[in-house]
Amino acid sequence: MTGKLYFEDFQPGAINEYGPRLVSREEIIAFAAEFDPQPMHLDEEAGRASMLGGLAASGWHTCCLMMRLAADGFILNSASMGAPGVDEVRWLAPLRPGRSITLRTTTLETRPSASRPEMGFVKMLFEVIDDAGVTVMTLSSSLIMRRREKSA
Amino acid sequence: MTGKLYFEDFQPGAINEYGPRLVSREEIIAFAAEFDPQPMHLDEEAGRASMLGGLAASGWHTCCLMMRLAADGFILNSASMGAPGVDEVRWLAPLRPGRSITLRTTTLETRPSASRPEMGFVKMLFEVIDDAGVTVMTLSSSLIMRRREKSA
Repeated sequence: MTGKLYFEDFQPGAINEYGPRLVSREEIIAFAAEFDPQPMHLDEEAGRASMLGGLAASGWHTCCLMMRLAADGFILNSASMGAPGVDEVRWLAPLRPGRSITLRTTTLETRPSASRPEMGFVKMLFEVIDDAGVTVMTLSSSLIMRRREKSA
Repeated sequence: MTGKLYFEDFQPGAINEYGPRLVSREEIIAFAAEFDPQPMHLDEEAGRASMLGGLAASGWHTCCLMMRLAADGFILNSASMGAPGVDEVRWLAPLRPGRSITLRTTTLETRPSASRPEMGFVKMLFEVIDDAGVTVMTLSSSLIMRRREKSA
């Protein structure tokens, strides 16, 4: 175990990987039934008739699985204070049942807050890649991280 | 009931509202436990100690609730073929348990596909507003909509 991660521990260019995590047909359908009940996320035949070419997870499900991989991977072991939002979510390829996904993070830039010296922003690229090597989703987000106490 | 919505039925400037939908403490905690187990989304006291100032839904939960409101509101009654992604998700204010949320959509622009004459892109702004009038989240996304058959 490494110690808790603070703003200063994130270096531009650093790449990390988390997972894998298996994605089952049952959870794809359960998620869709609750949050995104479009036929191509609920039914194999409807999926085949759609642009997805087969049953595939809701893009929002992929976002949520990404969040869980990031939480378990490093956020819960960090001084994260949250995030103001997300940019450029790109659903690049269908996420199929039975695939395992990995999360790759790249630290793009870090910037101390101008107005709040106790925190800084860590802009990261998040890439979700399946076990066939296909990148199914990318997005970027700036995490708010507490800075190490100067006096500590 | 109106007929099924096609690309041509979306007009720039059009505004619609869907909902309301009550968001319970139980579902906020259940979602967080599954997808975003950060303490401020699981526990009232941890929420008070965070930037959120109290228990609040995961921002991804707000995205998923938005998707469900949009699906029930118009997407399931449309010729939607999916969406390539999402831009500028902004989590502007905490979504608290016991609030009801409304989705407001604004059609920003529409554009026939240059390469695929059977479809077009409908760029929309999505705003999630709680029953105190607070905008808790905004995002934009381009939906892919089938065009009406010219010959129909």
